[in-house]
Amino acid sequence: MNNIEDIAKKAKAASIALAAMKTEDKNNALEKIAKALIDNKEYIISQNNEDLNRAKSLLEKGEISQAIFDRLKLSDSKFNDMVAGVLDVSKLPDPIGQTLWANKLDEGLELYRISCPIGVIGVIFEARPDVVVQISSLAIKSSNAVILKGGIEALLTNTAMVKIINDTLGKINLFPDGAINFVESREDVNQMLSMDKYIDLIIPRGSNKLVQFIQKNTKIPVLGHADGICHIYIDEEANIALGVKVSVDSKIQYPAACNAVETLLVSEKAAEVFLPKLYDAMTKENVKLKGCEKTKKILPNIEEATSDDWKTEYGDKILSIKIVSDVNEAINHINDFGSGHTDCIITDNKKTAEHFMNYVDSAGVYHNVSTRFADGFRYGLGAEVGISTNKTHARGPVGLEGLTIYKYKLYGSGQIVGEYTGANAKAFLHERIK
Amino acid sequence: MNNIEDIAKKAKAASIALAAMKTEDKNNALEKIAKALIDNKEYIISQNNEDLNRAKSLLEKGEISQAIFDRLKLSDSKFNDMVAGVLDVSKLPDPIGQTLWANKLDEGLELYRISCPIGVIGVIFEARPDVVVQISSLAIKSSNAVILKGGIEALLTNTAMVKIINDTLGKINLFPDGAINFVESREDVNQMLSMDKYIDLIIPRGSNKLVQFIQKNTKIPVLGHADGICHIYIDEEANIALGVKVSVDSKIQYPAACNAVETLLVSEKAAEVFLPKLYDAMTKENVKLKGCEKTKKILPNIEEATSDDWKTEYGDKILSIKIVSDVNEAINHINDFGSGHTDCIITDNKKTAEHFMNYVDSAGVYHNVSTRFADGFRYGLGAEVGISTNKTHARGPVGLEGLTIYKYKLYGSGQIVGEYTGANAKAFLHERIK
Repeated sequence: MNNIEDIAKKAKAASIALAAMKTEDKNNALEKIAKALIDNKEYIISQNNEDLNRAKSLLEKGEISQAIFDRLKLSDSKFNDMVAGVLDVSKLPDPIGQTLWANKLDEGLELYRISCPIGVIGVIFEARPDVVVQISSLAIKSSNAVILKGGIEALLTNTAMVKIINDTLGKINLFPDGAINFVESREDVNQMLSMDKYIDLIIPRGSNKLVQFIQKNTKIPVLGHADGICHIYIDEEANIALGVKVSVDSKIQYPAACNAVETLLVSEKAAEVFLPKLYDAMTKENVKLKGCEKTKKILPNIEEATSDDWKTEYGDKILSIKIVSDVNEAINHINDFGSGHTDCIITDNKKTAEHFMNYVDSAGVYHNVSTRFADGFRYGLGAEVGISTNKTHARGPVGLEGLTIYKYKLYGSGQIVGEYTGANAKAFLHERIK
Repeated sequence: MNNIEDIAKKAKAASIALAAMKTEDKNNALEKIAKALIDNKEYIISQNNEDLNRAKSLLEKGEISQAIFDRLKLSDSKFNDMVAGVLDVSKLPDPIGQTLWANKLDEGLELYRISCPIGVIGVIFEARPDVVVQISSLAIKSSNAVILKGGIEALLTNTAMVKIINDTLGKINLFPDGAINFVESREDVNQMLSMDKYIDLIIPRGSNKLVQFIQKNTKIPVLGHADGICHIYIDEEANIALGVKVSVDSKIQYPAACNAVETLLVSEKAAEVFLPKLYDAMTKENVKLKGCEKTKKILPNIEEATSDDWKTEYGDKILSIKIVSDVNEAINHINDFGSGHTDCIITDNKKTAEHFMNYVDSAGVYHNVSTRFADGFRYGLGAEVGISTNKTHARGPVGLEGLTIYKYKLYGSGQIVGEYTGANAKAFLHERIK
């Protein structure tokens, strides 16, 4: 096996060639990969079954969780979705080579800001083997080279699929060698994180623990999110039935998701009407409620929330509730304890909603709608690379665009800066080119 | 004096209020700052003179360089430029609150991607005191809070100007306290770099050494560039006179600048005609040439270049020259030894130029024009925050836009994800809103 530095160097070289590839050649490669996956379905599933057999004994020994075991299985529907995903990506517009902005600096001196790939992207993920295929197709479409590190549980499935992808790409004329790379061990991760010379971006997909470990151990920019502590604020002018409905969906539609609500903030003027209705609806869905002192005066049966609750991503059917005096206390609570992911206000007052949305410093600020909408597919971004709580580069659900940056192309005819400087300096035109 | 954590916390709080400020209020603040600087010119200059007196003795002891001493002086013209810069920024379009993209997800469910400030920006710079005013005005216009750390040499000048700015802002109703902050000691820098909870972006302005130190010592994203090793490739189909003229300007127009050329790559088919003409022109400008073995066969008088030369940013009137077989060897050399800053091809063949511009992985790729054009003002960006060789967030000369990110505002009417899932799922519309 090659060492990571060799792999990273080769990926860098591949990324240069990928950057100049034509859209039709990239789409053609994606279609061939989809076909090859279908042609080799039996083999992939057999490898997945071996992974599952090994995992079963780990599960029985308690070394992996049921959730990881479930995610590992490449069911028929998951396999079909995975292949359909490759073809979907082939149909998306090419994010590369777009003119983002252009300016005529002077006659015969034209500047173009053109979208281009980032270069080499390291993706570190856990049990789900379909991520290999998803990220490979996003990388090909956006002309980036990738180094994939999957979970050890899915090793045989991942290895089989990467081999099929690379065998397919190897038969395509002009497709550079080294675009899609796969590494397997934990030591490889540490080495990857030190390769800031060759790797331009790290995307961790998995638990908070994984994301935090990576953020702490690399100089390479990381596109990920630390936590998903989402809030809903029930305003004094809220439509109560709508508030209950949206809160229930935000909690129970998929409690383990990062965009599920964890804390409900309730205006003291709405609390007495809202909370009993919420209690009935949540209890029916087996959601455990925890409340501040004031909440417990209205709902004496529930557990008391401590200050730790405001910082906790339960990822489960648990919801904490705090009564606040007004929208500003809600905003301050969210900016102090939230994770900048997605936060919602329920109100019929548009002015209050706009105030909340302007002052809450989160990737998503919502009015009268479930926090579960924070998702690349639902947003219409075409494909989701991940959800970012970064405040640079890309924020919120990230589409293909998040895998791009730009370069400036300047076309001249012998101009020198000396002519635009000093006493007889020529003036710049600076006319926008449409 | 407050400690850095208190300052950073307060800056974070200020950033939330700044994010919601109106354009006219920000412009008004900038106009008042410009006026206050003019009104207090005498005081500022007196403080600058004290800084200069102290610096003179450091200069005599050899503790600071002449270059730093020169940059420290706030001459009349520099003062006027500085004030004019504040008014220029007030006239730029507001980069905040722009709708970057909008999508109708369904009836009564509309998504807007809106530009917003990054939050708190740490700016670490060296001797130039005018940076305080420049960065403060860019921060106000882009609704970011800043923590400024200037060079100790300019302490009195910086302190005086920050005080004038903050006294002015303090008199403006609704302008948040803690937007513009100034810290002074080296220990403050180390503390700043650890404040990833409150500081969202670090911008170092100064020597490569400073930038590299910061990149190595923080988890906060850094907007800066490591090196400026720029190349010009003289193609076999180059216009020789144009190539000489552009090379001379790229080297001597301001040799200390990061966008000055350091290495000339010359096609072996152009070398015999081009190099003697280049030698004459460069010698006239007192530029010292260093060449590879093949170059020395044509220009036997020059010093031999070693492999270290290909990695060196001279920042001086020195130029290394390497003869290459063709455009592809030039591209590979640039991608291996360059810093991804700005690289140029001289050729009359448009196809070769486009090939070079697509395969060279740099922030700026130029055709027949001086590398010295890599600059925010020359690009027409309105104001320059710095030049970035990052491959995420912002690349090349960075304008006000580089201090912004976006948030998603989702306006609903009670929609829940449950309705868009499962057997009877509603379909999304995903219609672009213009």
